[in-house]
Amino acid sequence: MISKKQLQYIRSLRLKKFREAGRQYVAEGTKLVLEMAAGPFRVAGIYATADWLKTYRDKIPQGIPAEEVSEPDMARISSLSTPSPVLAVIDMPQTTLKDVAVKEGITLVLDDIQDPGNLGTIIRIADWFGISRIICSPGTVELYNPKVIQSTMGSIKRVQVIYADLGPFLEGRAGNTKIYGTFLEGENIYSAQLPKSAIIVIGNEANGISPKVGKWVSDKITIPVFRYSEEEHGHAESLNAAVATAVVCSEFRRRNYE
Amino acid sequence: MISKKQLQYIRSLRLKKFREAGRQYVAEGTKLVLEMAAGPFRVAGIYATADWLKTYRDKIPQGIPAEEVSEPDMARISSLSTPSPVLAVIDMPQTTLKDVAVKEGITLVLDDIQDPGNLGTIIRIADWFGISRIICSPGTVELYNPKVIQSTMGSIKRVQVIYADLGPFLEGRAGNTKIYGTFLEGENIYSAQLPKSAIIVIGNEANGISPKVGKWVSDKITIPVFRYSEEEHGHAESLNAAVATAVVCSEFRRRNYE
Repeated sequence: MISKKQLQYIRSLRLKKFREAGRQYVAEGTKLVLEMAAGPFRVAGIYATADWLKTYRDKIPQGIPAEEVSEPDMARISSLSTPSPVLAVIDMPQTTLKDVAVKEGITLVLDDIQDPGNLGTIIRIADWFGISRIICSPGTVELYNPKVIQSTMGSIKRVQVIYADLGPFLEGRAGNTKIYGTFLEGENIYSAQLPKSAIIVIGNEANGISPKVGKWVSDKITIPVFRYSEEEHGHAESLNAAVATAVVCSEFRRRNYE
Repeated sequence: MISKKQLQYIRSLRLKKFREAGRQYVAEGTKLVLEMAAGPFRVAGIYATADWLKTYRDKIPQGIPAEEVSEPDMARISSLSTPSPVLAVIDMPQTTLKDVAVKEGITLVLDDIQDPGNLGTIIRIADWFGISRIICSPGTVELYNPKVIQSTMGSIKRVQVIYADLGPFLEGRAGNTKIYGTFLEGENIYSAQLPKSAIIVIGNEANGISPKVGKWVSDKITIPVFRYSEEEHGHAESLNAAVATAVVCSEFRRRNYE
């Protein structure tokens, strides 16, 4: 059985400061845990109820320790409102900007995305559209926040997410790669030229792209609003950040389909 | 000052059964409250802190009663984790399927969307893309759930949302209008024929479109997955329901742009 100290440690991983100290984070739920256990990140341990272990023990790859946890203890260490019967403690990878090739294909750049659900959904969108790199400003919500991890649905395995100062990063690429940014005023994305390789900047939910990041944008694009009828009676002021990301990625990929 | 009974009533509107009994719901926050107060729905009352009223009383249209509420009472009646200084109690409109014209333009049909944030985001997407009608299955999350209302960001004013049995609704339109549905296997949306007027069915987050709704779909479409490289190493299994809605609506609108 699991020790009190282990329980305390796993529970502490709900908080960023303990995640950073231990360089570990938590993923919950059968599907996500088994997906993460298949690699490539090192899973330090799986913690599950007796019932779960009875059904799934055979599916845990060799070398990953699995410990039994009582249901009340599971509720204590879970960060879900309906505790899952299983969670995994996973090592954070040591990825830096140097490990990332940004010349070929599409790179997403997030300028202070705040909502954990939005970040998770954006990672899942990137995974769907075959975008394997996301560069986040230091002010973007932390990748290992439990709400981000849960909403990535496993896409975190396939998409590299790196935190870096966006100014120097974009400055280094400006001139070599087109840098697109979504604005309320910009070129219509449906008719704009969209190359196969590009950097796409997505702005903060409330404030959009900040001036210090926006100054590196070479191509301002916009998703046009459609009017209901000739007589205008208002429309949505903006699209959710993840929704805008999806529309932009879809349009980039459509142009370069096949 | 507000009475104890009024406070209790507003607080009760957090629960669906009391919203249905009173035929009223709550919207919170300065922006949303002022947008709703401008019509077309009848705002029965605005409840705000003294500070808020000092700044915004002039912006409340004539005929809408405004009552002062202390900050502790505001925290009691608010359903937000960070209570807003203002909320509005709003009458539910009496819209039925008969009030809705579905021949022209795009109609969205939601088959058991469960997540309040997804429903709110889909309403906001519809508003952006000029889609003024959404028909929801009876099993779809309730429109007046506070999380739905907050995430619509005011788009609920412009988009008609009606709950109806989808089988009879679709049966009545089949043959006259093309009925599109998003599936993991279907015609590539980028090359499929997409008319100006259509019904688009969006499925449940976990189970997709149910068989009893799916049988009315005339055109199965899919948003293609993009591979990272020749050597396949997995990809996201699905897109979030609101994200898929956005990509599909964007593509329908792009085709019929100008």
